[in-house]
Amino acid sequence: MKTIKNIFLLTAVAGLILSCGNNNGGKSGAMASSNAEKVYVAPGEHDEYYAFMSGGYSGNVTVYGLPSGRMFKEIPVFSQFPTSGYGYSEETKPMFNTSFGFVPWGDAHHPDISQTNGELDGRWLFINENNTPRIARISLATFETEEIIEIPHSAGNHASSFVTENTEYIVAGTRFAVPNPQRDMPISEMKGEFKGPLTFIAIDDSGHMKIDFQLNMPGFNYDLAHPGRNKSHGWFFFTSYNTEEANTLLEVNASQNDKDYIVAVNWQKLAEFVANGGGKKVPATYAHNVYDEKTHTATSTMMEGVTSIDPREVEGAVYYIPIPKSPHGCDVDPSGEYIIGSGKLSTDLSIYSFTKIQEAIANKDYEGDAYGIPVLNYENTLAGVVTQAGLGPLHTEFDGRGNAYTTFFISSEVVKWKLETWEVVDRQPTYYSVGHLMIPGGNSRTPDAKYLVAMNKITKDRYLPTGPELEHSAQLYDITGDKMELLYDFPTHGEPHYAAGIAASKIKDNVKKYYDLEENNHPYVAKSESETKVVRNGNEVHVYMTMIRSHFSPDNIEGIKVGDKVYFHITNLEQDFDVPHGFSMIGANTSELLIMPGQTKTSIWEPKREGVWPFYCTDFCSALHQEMQGYVRVSAKNSDTELKWSLDDE
Amino acid sequence: MKTIKNIFLLTAVAGLILSCGNNNGGKSGAMASSNAEKVYVAPGEHDEYYAFMSGGYSGNVTVYGLPSGRMFKEIPVFSQFPTSGYGYSEETKPMFNTSFGFVPWGDAHHPDISQTNGELDGRWLFINENNTPRIARISLATFETEEIIEIPHSAGNHASSFVTENTEYIVAGTRFAVPNPQRDMPISEMKGEFKGPLTFIAIDDSGHMKIDFQLNMPGFNYDLAHPGRNKSHGWFFFTSYNTEEANTLLEVNASQNDKDYIVAVNWQKLAEFVANGGGKKVPATYAHNVYDEKTHTATSTMMEGVTSIDPREVEGAVYYIPIPKSPHGCDVDPSGEYIIGSGKLSTDLSIYSFTKIQEAIANKDYEGDAYGIPVLNYENTLAGVVTQAGLGPLHTEFDGRGNAYTTFFISSEVVKWKLETWEVVDRQPTYYSVGHLMIPGGNSRTPDAKYLVAMNKITKDRYLPTGPELEHSAQLYDITGDKMELLYDFPTHGEPHYAAGIAASKIKDNVKKYYDLEENNHPYVAKSESETKVVRNGNEVHVYMTMIRSHFSPDNIEGIKVGDKVYFHITNLEQDFDVPHGFSMIGANTSELLIMPGQTKTSIWEPKREGVWPFYCTDFCSALHQEMQGYVRVSAKNSDTELKWSLDDE
Repeated sequence: MKTIKNIFLLTAVAGLILSCGNNNGGKSGAMASSNAEKVYVAPGEHDEYYAFMSGGYSGNVTVYGLPSGRMFKEIPVFSQFPTSGYGYSEETKPMFNTSFGFVPWGDAHHPDISQTNGELDGRWLFINENNTPRIARISLATFETEEIIEIPHSAGNHASSFVTENTEYIVAGTRFAVPNPQRDMPISEMKGEFKGPLTFIAIDDSGHMKIDFQLNMPGFNYDLAHPGRNKSHGWFFFTSYNTEEANTLLEVNASQNDKDYIVAVNWQKLAEFVANGGGKKVPATYAHNVYDEKTHTATSTMMEGVTSIDPREVEGAVYYIPIPKSPHGCDVDPSGEYIIGSGKLSTDLSIYSFTKIQEAIANKDYEGDAYGIPVLNYENTLAGVVTQAGLGPLHTEFDGRGNAYTTFFISSEVVKWKLETWEVVDRQPTYYSVGHLMIPGGNSRTPDAKYLVAMNKITKDRYLPTGPELEHSAQLYDITGDKMELLYDFPTHGEPHYAAGIAASKIKDNVKKYYDLEENNHPYVAKSESETKVVRNGNEVHVYMTMIRSHFSPDNIEGIKVGDKVYFHITNLEQDFDVPHGFSMIGANTSELLIMPGQTKTSIWEPKREGVWPFYCTDFCSALHQEMQGYVRVSAKNSDTELKWSLDDE
Repeated sequence: MKTIKNIFLLTAVAGLILSCGNNNGGKSGAMASSNAEKVYVAPGEHDEYYAFMSGGYSGNVTVYGLPSGRMFKEIPVFSQFPTSGYGYSEETKPMFNTSFGFVPWGDAHHPDISQTNGELDGRWLFINENNTPRIARISLATFETEEIIEIPHSAGNHASSFVTENTEYIVAGTRFAVPNPQRDMPISEMKGEFKGPLTFIAIDDSGHMKIDFQLNMPGFNYDLAHPGRNKSHGWFFFTSYNTEEANTLLEVNASQNDKDYIVAVNWQKLAEFVANGGGKKVPATYAHNVYDEKTHTATSTMMEGVTSIDPREVEGAVYYIPIPKSPHGCDVDPSGEYIIGSGKLSTDLSIYSFTKIQEAIANKDYEGDAYGIPVLNYENTLAGVVTQAGLGPLHTEFDGRGNAYTTFFISSEVVKWKLETWEVVDRQPTYYSVGHLMIPGGNSRTPDAKYLVAMNKITKDRYLPTGPELEHSAQLYDITGDKMELLYDFPTHGEPHYAAGIAASKIKDNVKKYYDLEENNHPYVAKSESETKVVRNGNEVHVYMTMIRSHFSPDNIEGIKVGDKVYFHITNLEQDFDVPHGFSMIGANTSELLIMPGQTKTSIWEPKREGVWPFYCTDFCSALHQEMQGYVRVSAKNSDTELKWSLDDE
């Protein structure tokens, strides 16, 4: 019961802090005015940075501008998105395929931008799905999800999807230990029986993902991860908790050990091992879903088998390092020398030295082992400790000027401290209960450290009230001076756990404005109104339809029967920026389609009642948008109404 | 072909205007700085106004603060919302029931706030669904959707859901003429055969909606509407277009007549007629879905029959008034004397006098009739014309200081003009192609006219690019001076067609912060951990589960079999503001649940594979959130594993 009391104490402290109430961070009127100017982006001007935030339980990614805090887009990734028809249209439904069947939702956590030579390169954004383990790749040219891969043998894909310095690999570490392979067994017998696979997914030049190998670790809970960089390139570091292997009431039972572990993995060594035929091919079934920009269509392939590595079979590749209990973040500084572990029930930060880790490995300076994996000596791998830094450290980012910034959930603050001297130099309160933080490029060799965004987990009174359910809240700090300066509060959509930021200049000139109609290879495309038609094949009817300001072709269709399955394949003929059209059909058991210029999308309609039913454009596209509509006549199942349709030139 | 040329000309003019490109509205640096202060809401301070915006094709409502332009919440209304499980949980699925079956998407257009004595009272927000005609009511205490009613005999519920001065009625005017009753007939024979019902829905003291009657109008397209107010209280005005009754290529064929109609309806007379037994009961089938805050559960009832009124059978109740072709907005000034019609292909605004309309009715001053409905004399009902005001007028709101503000889509501007002198006093460009506009209370007797929000349909280069698909863009103007002043651009989520604004002071003290656990009447609630249990009934298993920082009870369940249908009924035991918990189950064919304090929600899981499968809390709820997890053991269909579960006190 001791642990419970400690938790209650921590909660009480947090309560005291929260009860400070509505607070503007002590800004004077004059400073507030200056802060107004710092975050204001005047009409017609652009923000300096993109911030890509995970949507958490929304399953999506949101795109914000900094410093304004304005949300520019919600990119649908793992969840159905009625706004555009993603996950409802025939072209996108395969993106939701998994070995469990169609899973229309996901829990998105850690976006990470692709890197070249340890710097953000702005090509792709990767993001993990926690619940039904998956990773997605988003194109930063189209801002659309292009690929989703399922991670087999995993559960709670949380230590994911962080990117190595040349985007060689992204990782997927299981948060929940599970039987591997899955099998029916008593939960209480998990200790030593459940496993915690860490998956390494190779990325090729076009960004495509392929599971290279799985490291079948002991059944702890793997929480967060970061790749080595610069001098530690070739290694990956993961935090683990519940080394107690408790199966129930983890808030007590997984807080028993004073220390859990960081896992240090030499992935270059493992990659070489696998390339040379090492590892064991084991059964696995997992979906790999790829969206093709030319056919505008996703295909899902059910993959079989993965290469599994026993961590004990590759000499010098896998080590545990003790860390104060129940750690969350595991962050690597720009030089690659320092690995910061955040024991989330601790007041201290443990900073490890990559050089000392290598020495300990060379000297076999072990405290013991865990399931045969060497445990390095805690004291001898430590570079230093930031003591009494705060309560509940979670995540650290860097400014490239020798400073680190750590969030403390329980004491609700961001703490700035110096690398190498381990001295705290500033602390600023957050409102309230900060989780992760983001500095653009803060997890690369070259942070672009003008702003820091704190992602807070409790919102309460920060905005006008909106009922029991609230958006989460971010706070923007200016970190160019000695002291952090709170500039602005802005609400965030879904539950942003984590974010990746990048200078707008690295992306904006490569962004696609529309799809080339000539390159459209959709199997049911109509590239001009003269190619539109309606084709019956048994009870399946395929409508090859086009849309352009401001009419559909065809816009009158007759001869549809109750019981038909009508496929509307609709091509937007526009070839200009920001001229989407929409399509919606009364009573359809799906969503509307939002179709970009040059794109084709398909919706199925199964009419159940006779009548004359309208469809229309759902996006206000022109002065005559309200006139962009049509009718479908539905006759009885056995009627002899003939198939016919209007054409523009009739 | 003449009409087509005119359209091309208008488009060319619009093109010229758009090509002016990126422009900050001519603000000097000094003014921009002052504007920064005007829109800045410092950390810890609150916005002055709520803006409720329709999400358009998102099917939802978004809540913004003014002047900051920050989005505080997306309220799911007509569309599935993976973020909270709305439309996926057992409790909310009935909200999507319609006479067509389960329709998981909607096209939300015109939010309107309830009124008392012609003033916004902040009790409810109503919003129409265009595609599968429905209206929703949202509580402004919980900011949740409480009720959805389907509108039968209608198609494209666009002239909706505007509220009368004491919330006696809201309306639903069909945008697409359809056979009434629906039947199989040739589309080309629509003229004179299709109908355009206008539905009047009565609102009772608790906000519940009931279809009182349908006015079975001729088969034109009814576009927008506003109630009379003040001196014109008791009347409703609707615009109609496609009086040509064209069925194909409406952009040409519905632009032939020089004038279409405003419909003036004396709803008090019709209500009296129906109350006295008038009208005809006709067959109709439509869903009425009500969410109960105490059981936290929606129920859907399929209703039968409505009262239909032939507009010719009630003397003095229904008139047409000519209006320049293809009108959109139909707006009534705070005094109720002036009705502003926006012929969207015109450069002029026609303003009608309620007094003159009454005189024309009294004098039977008719130009003729349409399908037996008298058409009042255009010239003799006119109060005035704002000439050469702009291109493509759409919508007018008022400031209560004698000024009106009209949006012009084609010339991309907001034009301020004086009531009674009809003189244009200011015009400001919008970026780009403005649709509707909003002044808080601007459609009531007492506008609260500090700010004006323009909702623009084309975004292009206003923000950092995000691929072919962009958010729409709003612009905030200060309208307290003689000239409108552009303060800020902010992106809006989905496609806001229309908005309703209200002073925060009218709402914020009544907003609910959590649900009272004691009042929770959910049939499967567990109000304490001691009430949790697992009950098998054939292959149905009901899990009565609770969640509190930071564990589930039970968190280990055994004895589930492949082929079972497992109902997780989960109660959040917290009783404080902003302490939601989430629940998600690996591989579940639904979304997660986000459960507010005091609330119970249910998710179904049908396990297909043996194994030990985890679940966890999806909302970062405490320092030990990562420990809030559990396991379900799934055995073979015919295994003899017994049902058992952990309890906190075991």
